[in-house]
Amino acid sequence: MLLASELHRSLQDPVLESINFLNEVVGKYPHAISFAPGAPSPVNLSDTDVEKYINRYLKHLCDDRGLKLEQARAVLYNYGPSGGLINDIVAAAFKRDRGVDITPESFVITVGAQEAILIVLRALFGSSQARLAVITPCYTGIIGAARLLDINVIGIDETEHGIDLKHLSDLCRSAQRCKKPIRALYVAPDFANPTGTLLDIDQRQQLLALAETHNFLLLEDNAYAFTAPLGKEIPTLKSLDKSKRVVFLGTFAKSCLPAARVGYVIADQLVINNDTNSHYFADDLVKVKSMTTLNTSPICQALIGGMILEYGGSIAALEQEKTNIYQRNLTVLLNALERHLKVDAGISWNRPKGGFFVRLRIPVLADMALLKCSAADYGVLWTPMSFFHLSNIGNNELRLSISYLSPEQIEEGVGRLAAFLHHVVQKRIK
Amino acid sequence: MLLASELHRSLQDPVLESINFLNEVVGKYPHAISFAPGAPSPVNLSDTDVEKYINRYLKHLCDDRGLKLEQARAVLYNYGPSGGLINDIVAAAFKRDRGVDITPESFVITVGAQEAILIVLRALFGSSQARLAVITPCYTGIIGAARLLDINVIGIDETEHGIDLKHLSDLCRSAQRCKKPIRALYVAPDFANPTGTLLDIDQRQQLLALAETHNFLLLEDNAYAFTAPLGKEIPTLKSLDKSKRVVFLGTFAKSCLPAARVGYVIADQLVINNDTNSHYFADDLVKVKSMTTLNTSPICQALIGGMILEYGGSIAALEQEKTNIYQRNLTVLLNALERHLKVDAGISWNRPKGGFFVRLRIPVLADMALLKCSAADYGVLWTPMSFFHLSNIGNNELRLSISYLSPEQIEEGVGRLAAFLHHVVQKRIK
Repeated sequence: MLLASELHRSLQDPVLESINFLNEVVGKYPHAISFAPGAPSPVNLSDTDVEKYINRYLKHLCDDRGLKLEQARAVLYNYGPSGGLINDIVAAAFKRDRGVDITPESFVITVGAQEAILIVLRALFGSSQARLAVITPCYTGIIGAARLLDINVIGIDETEHGIDLKHLSDLCRSAQRCKKPIRALYVAPDFANPTGTLLDIDQRQQLLALAETHNFLLLEDNAYAFTAPLGKEIPTLKSLDKSKRVVFLGTFAKSCLPAARVGYVIADQLVINNDTNSHYFADDLVKVKSMTTLNTSPICQALIGGMILEYGGSIAALEQEKTNIYQRNLTVLLNALERHLKVDAGISWNRPKGGFFVRLRIPVLADMALLKCSAADYGVLWTPMSFFHLSNIGNNELRLSISYLSPEQIEEGVGRLAAFLHHVVQKRIK
Repeated sequence: MLLASELHRSLQDPVLESINFLNEVVGKYPHAISFAPGAPSPVNLSDTDVEKYINRYLKHLCDDRGLKLEQARAVLYNYGPSGGLINDIVAAAFKRDRGVDITPESFVITVGAQEAILIVLRALFGSSQARLAVITPCYTGIIGAARLLDINVIGIDETEHGIDLKHLSDLCRSAQRCKKPIRALYVAPDFANPTGTLLDIDQRQQLLALAETHNFLLLEDNAYAFTAPLGKEIPTLKSLDKSKRVVFLGTFAKSCLPAARVGYVIADQLVINNDTNSHYFADDLVKVKSMTTLNTSPICQALIGGMILEYGGSIAALEQEKTNIYQRNLTVLLNALERHLKVDAGISWNRPKGGFFVRLRIPVLADMALLKCSAADYGVLWTPMSFFHLSNIGNNELRLSISYLSPEQIEEGVGRLAAFLHHVVQKRIK
């Protein structure tokens, strides 16, 4: 028997419940239409040919690296280097796609972006005073990882147009004054989870300047960038990063295959040990990773590596194919909201240009009780926005996700949502 | 640019270098015979048929769980529950193999045993006063994970016959007195890495009694148990565990496929929240895992699940096939040592009955300089035992691993080792 009070305090934080909760609620109402999960469309996954991609990678090891087939298979089936196997393929794709040339040694292949977040936070936070800033609401995985490591997190409220840079700048100054400096800012500039917000090029440039002025790193989460309308992509922070202020977090879960659990981090900062000695920050991340998961499955890496090679060594080409579905779904959702809901009675929503998510404001508290009523009585699921706030306090917003549904389901779901909200508003007026 | 002194202090600990070091040194001397790595024999891996096992698991989902093939494929390719997909298969195998019936809800499937260690330590250690005890020398992964989480570790020296239980008991008492209680003891009772030591049934019973008396948990690492000679297996601590003192750490890396990165933990302890509320410790581990790697690759789980099913739902049957190679290699090594070395001049070694490792004592400091000389001049590699000690101080021992070599390589390697040691001893006498 163990006492909950003697276990690590992160276990008391509701943020650690959020992912389980989503799984559970979806399982409990199998007939509800669910705008809850941020998982990729099953349409994009159903024809995945695992064997084909693994064989493509084996061919690469034989043709391009001169291994015999037996040697190549040995690489695939045993342990591998903690830093990763396919760093060369990912680095080459990054260069091809974005014109940014970063050495493969600065890449670490991770078990999804979640492990990337964990090891970056662990390596970076050496003092208990240093703080991590996040733009709230934000992805629960960054808050959860910080909680596991007892890292202090400070939230900066998102504005309608992205980040309140003045607020951030003031915060950095006061943090410095009280010796609790901001060591890093976590930011998803492209269609952030959970709000779909996109930072324009101007805000990106200003963020980089602020990071330089106040001496913090930017942890750039790139998960949803691939959903941008074709030709309208904005350069990543990493592409604009002249003074190595950006640690880049990439994932193949949303665009390729969640089940491979492969992500990566670019950490090309130099770490100075003493006057004569330096190494890449990535080297430190590899050391941390060797103690979290030892190495990322070589089979899964081969799968993703083979997939990239199959698309001519371009991640962008591979992602582009998937973009259409999300663009189409988003349009269907926004049109349906327009038709079914009135922007009044305290109801409003944003209109992202990409991503998986829309932020919907309603006139009542969007809490668990309301969600249960929505699921049980109206057959429609969503995620309370309170999940994505630091204090997990209730508020009047919810997140709608379009990634996992068909256009027909979205149409039907918005109909149900409208009926539910009609009921909610009626009750409120009475 | 980052300053090493401002990063997390674990990065200064040599234990975090050890895995990288092994990779590097093996890579640097490709023609040396290497007794260094603890990776499984390539003979056991070369005929792995990934597709066959994945299809076997798909068949299970269809036949036994009533899914249509399309639904089964969807399970394989998207995210999955953080706690795992194949818990039922592993729990049933555990029952079949050991006669111990533990509910699948107490199992968490992890990215290798390394992640299992990380999440158990994270959940368990709530107070900065609590300490983790380890039997030294021990697996570096337990020390490394503790370092990442700033958990205090205390070492208990291994004796010739296993654990000095009197020392452990005294330590528990004094730890309690100074309010730095021992919360858990990490122990690998079966052919421990790096020494090959085996605890007899008596010591196991006494360990369980001590854990009860002094209120600590036993973290049982089972990685090498499958290498026991047939019919000579000793019951695991978990099998003997009447009062749920044992958290069991399992891995399929050594016995099935390292590249799948699949392990598991059994945590059937009840956690008491308040008078009316309780849950399994495994539930807390799932919460932590949702913030370390989100979930273990469903593809890799399917591979391992299919493999177990292919062997009649028995992990023991699957492992048994692999045991012979390690038993044979160990015999070849011990016989060769007997022929080539004399137990004198400060040279001695133990004679484990199973496992991957032999502990060799030599008359000089077995440090990095000596290893380089051994590799460059004599073409033979080994691991300094100092790697597996808490303080990483040098000592006169080294670890020989037999897992990755052929009998011919072992014979040749011991010949080279003998020549090297002859040179070392000569030099010492002069």
